[in-house]
This record gives sequence, C-alpha cells and structure tokens, in this order.
Amino acid sequence: MTSERPSRIAVGPSLEPAFARAVTSGGGTVCALDECPDALVWTGGHETFPAVLPASVRWVQLPAAGVENWLTEGIIKAHPQVTWSSAAGAYAATVAEHEVMFLLAGVRALPDHLAATSWTPGDFYPRLGTLRGATVGIIGTGGIGRALIPMLAALGAQSLAVTRTGRPVPGAVETFPVERIDELWPLADHFVIAAPATSETERLIGAEELSSMKPTAWLVNVARGNLIDTDALVDALTRGTIAGAGLDVTDPEPLPDGHPLWSLRNAMITPHDSNPPALRVPAYVEHVTENITRFASGLEPLAVIDPRAGY
Amino acid sequence: MTSERPSRIAVGPSLEPAFARAVTSGGGTVCALDECPDALVWTGGHETFPAVLPASVRWVQLPAAGVENWLTEGIIKAHPQVTWSSAAGAYAATVAEHEVMFLLAGVRALPDHLAATSWTPGDFYPRLGTLRGATVGIIGTGGIGRALIPMLAALGAQSLAVTRTGRPVPGAVETFPVERIDELWPLADHFVIAAPATSETERLIGAEELSSMKPTAWLVNVARGNLIDTDALVDALTRGTIAGAGLDVTDPEPLPDGHPLWSLRNAMITPHDSNPPALRVPAYVEHVTENITRFASGLEPLAVIDPRAGY
Repeated sequence: MTSERPSRIAVGPSLEPAFARAVTSGGGTVCALDECPDALVWTGGHETFPAVLPASVRWVQLPAAGVENWLTEGIIKAHPQVTWSSAAGAYAATVAEHEVMFLLAGVRALPDHLAATSWTPGDFYPRLGTLRGATVGIIGTGGIGRALIPMLAALGAQSLAVTRTGRPVPGAVETFPVERIDELWPLADHFVIAAPATSETERLIGAEELSSMKPTAWLVNVARGNLIDTDALVDALTRGTIAGAGLDVTDPEPLPDGHPLWSLRNAMITPHDSNPPALRVPAYVEHVTENITRFASGLEPLAVIDPRAGY
Repeated sequence: MTSERPSRIAVGPSLEPAFARAVTSGGGTVCALDECPDALVWTGGHETFPAVLPASVRWVQLPAAGVENWLTEGIIKAHPQVTWSSAAGAYAATVAEHEVMFLLAGVRALPDHLAATSWTPGDFYPRLGTLRGATVGIIGTGGIGRALIPMLAALGAQSLAVTRTGRPVPGAVETFPVERIDELWPLADHFVIAAPATSETERLIGAEELSSMKPTAWLVNVARGNLIDTDALVDALTRGTIAGAGLDVTDPEPLPDGHPLWSLRNAMITPHDSNPPALRVPAYVEHVTENITRFASGLEPLAVIDPRAGY
C-alpha cells in the first residue's frame, strides 16, 4: 500500500505553520486543495467545509472528536469514496483529566468546602469519600473513556465499562454491553458519561436511571448535554437522589442565565471548556502527525468515522 | 530473629475488635499491658499514653503520621530501649488523593467556575491549565510524597522531589537535596508540601519563596500549617504572585472565623479533613497488620521514628 511518492496533503481552511510541520513530520508534502491532494486535513468548522472535494482525495481528517454535525449536514455521506477520520482520542487525555477533577472534587466535597467560612471538620466528615476502592461506571469507552481508566487506576478506583458490544475494555474490571446498562446504575459508585451523541444515546440518563444510582454517587458528563434529561437531573440534585454532578456540557447549551443548575451547590458547571483552545491545538497537531504517518505508510488512520454508528 | 512463641501484642488505650483482628492476622496474640507484652499498638492520643511501659516492651506503634507532639512531650525519649514506629505512610494514599484534587481543581480553575452564574467559556480560557506535561515540586517525600508520584504520572505530570539527602526518589524525574531547594521555586509549575513539621521546616515558604514561583503556580499544603508563612501567603494570593493555594492545614489552626484566607477565592480551604475518620481507621488497621507481621518475623517495622530527625 505504501505509495512511491510522498503523500500530498492539503490543509484547510488555512495553512497554519504547526500543521505544515505536522505534514512534513508525518512524511507528506503540503499542496493546495486544487493541486490533486491525496488527503485533506481540516482545522475549521463544518460550515466552511468545501462543497465538492477533488476526486484525488482519498482521506479527510476532521478536527472534532464528536462529528454528529458533519453527519447530519450530509457532508460525509456526499463523499462515499473518501475515508473520514475524526479527532476522537486526540483530546482524550485532557478531557479525562477534567473528569478526574470533577470526580475528586465531588467525593471530597470541594463545593461545600469552598462555600464554608468557618473551620468545622465535623460537618464534613459524614460526606467525605474517596475514589480509592470505589467503582466508576464509564459509559462509552472511546478515546476519553480509555484515557480515564489508567488515571482512575492510579487513584485506586476500578472502572466498569459500558460499550455497544460488551467486548472487554483493557483495564476495566468488567465491561457491560449496552443492553445490560441498567445493571450498572445501582452497582457503580460514580459515573462518567463519555459516549457519543447519537439517536441511541439521547436522554440515556433520566429519572429512572438517576433513582437507581447510589445516593453518594457523583455523575460526570463531558460528552454531550442531551445524554442526560436535564429536568430529571435538577430534580435528583435538589432532592439528594444522588450526591452531585459535574457537567462540562448541558442541555440546553449554553446553559441560560438563571437556570436552576447554576444555583445548586452540588452541580459543578464548566462551560464546555474541558478542552480549551490552548490545549486543543497542540493535541490536534499531534493527532494529525500520527494519522499522516499512518496514511503515508498505507495504514488506516486512527478514529475512522463509521457513518452508520454515528461516530 | 523469629521468636519461638507468637509475639504478644497489647493494644491501648482500649481494644477495638478491628485491632484484635489485626494482631491475629499479623501472627501475634493479644495480651494486656500488664501481661508482659512484646509490643504495644496505640490507637489514641499522646495525652493518655502510659507514663511507664513494661520492660518487656520492645516496640511501640503510634497512630499518627506526624509525631512531633510525642517527641516534644518527651514520651519517646523516656523509653530509649524501645523501637518506635509512626503511621507515616499509612494514610499516604488518601492524603495524596486530596493533593491531586487540589492541584486539578486549581489548574482547571474550579473555584472560579463554581462562582460563575453565566456561560462564559472565553472568560476561563486564559486561566485554564493542565497537569499534563507540568512539573510538580514535592517538598518531602515520605509516604505521602511517594504515594503522590504515581498518581501524578498517570495524569502526565512529572515530579521534582526534595529530600534531606537528595538521594534519587523512585519515579521523580529529579531529586534535589534540601540545600538546593531554592532552585526549585522558579522551576516547578506547582508545589505540594508534604514535609514533616520540624524546626528546620518551619516557615519553609515565605515571601521570598512565593515571589520566586511562577504566577501560574498552585501551592498545596497537607502537611502542617507552620511550613508556610501565612501572612506572606495571603499577600501573594491577594496580589496574584501565584495562582492559588489548596490548604488542608493552616497556621493558625483552626483558622479563625473572619481570617482573610476564608474570603480569597484562590484559597481552597479544607479543615484538616484530608484523612477523615471513616478513611483513617481502616488504613491504620492495615498498617498495624503489616507491622505486626514484620515484628513477628523479626523485621524492622515500617516508619521507624528517628528522634534526631524529628519524624
């Protein structure tokens, strides 16, 4: 499969120096989109993506980890001859770090501590937990879920994974197929939602799932807001059905001013900034370099998109 | 060295069932303090410790990780024929977890996020960091420091250790002897204070040290409050000399109501509850079991106290 000439890689919508270096490091040469490239590395949004790709393009690299917009806009379907890859996994470590932050701040009651203005350890003792010896249910084990598992292991927590097929995930003490997900709600101590947003995962967690969880459970969502039924979550947090939630994504998003989630102390909100620009660009450059190397060597890129699966 | 009869272990001030089981699991037999025990496992404070120990006692296990009170009260000096061991290391993992919580909440700007009532990611972007690729200076690498290193490694952070001798600490990318500690202040991205409280470490960190640190640095103290000059810290936090602090210990402690640290948003205070009772007892039982096993086998117990070093 290795071609005899260097792979010709176009970069759009504009060519930043970091990506030119990535092409060269990966063993390719940069060319313009109208110069018969073998592949296109995209660094922008779906709104400005070219309506028509040159027939020479065999591979397109997209900068998002979740590509539901590219699918629903029909961009991927319009080019069936092309292999599309996402950035799934590229931002995995930084987002997984954010998840660990939410889990630790939750079990250690940091929101309540930050609100305190007096030295009252006895008030906190009954609420203080640890990840050591705890089990964390990880719903969806793409790059983020897989990056999370060793971080949790280092803290002494065990991962219970949920995947579509139930095929064992390395490092997880048990992997459940999605059909058996209901077994997990009363079983795991805490939950991290890291599943792609698809029609199958919409409102995966509603009133019934929340009421099955332990009252000490923290629920973390860094995937997409619509995986959780927000009204049911507000109700559960208000009534103490679960201990709390750490949300980097919400539904609706942006979360409107005055929304009840802003005023619940056991709701930690970060405004979809778990993967901020300063951390995002170098991570995407690294992913692009790896995938160009793979493409130039005739290997399949990482994170090939399966349009039927939706990610 | 293995004795021909089981080691006779007294437990005081009272015998809880968990400790009776620890003695048995460790290969010893429980006896009373007036029945010629070989060793005493203490589960209380220094105030109620026996003034005189039976001459048969060769080893005493204390329940604290920091034993400065036992030293200054002369309890240890009064029994020079005895090997004394502390609980240093026993609570290491749970305290190290607390440190990781502080560091992550700091670099991810959680205190500012929790104060927000509007969805403004752009306000946070310039302040958001990561432990991935960062260096953490660990001052003191007893049990807690050593437990912290692999947790940081799993998050992609590198540890720079400071010890008395500078002998390389496993897992640290570099170990500095305490004489070279000033090199560390501008070098490391963040700091964790995990040193014992001795006359040498009192006010280890003052105005000069704080002003040498990076303005993005987070400083975590879970050791003893007097290792930091509190007034200098308040000044540094107010002026933004460093990014913030996570404090499980303070000076004075308890921190009085109305103290400026309570109202600084970049000061995260937990009231010396990083090792709460619910987590402490099982950890001490585990440590006692290990040390009884070692004692019964003729091995030196873990965490033998060196009165000259002060821990």
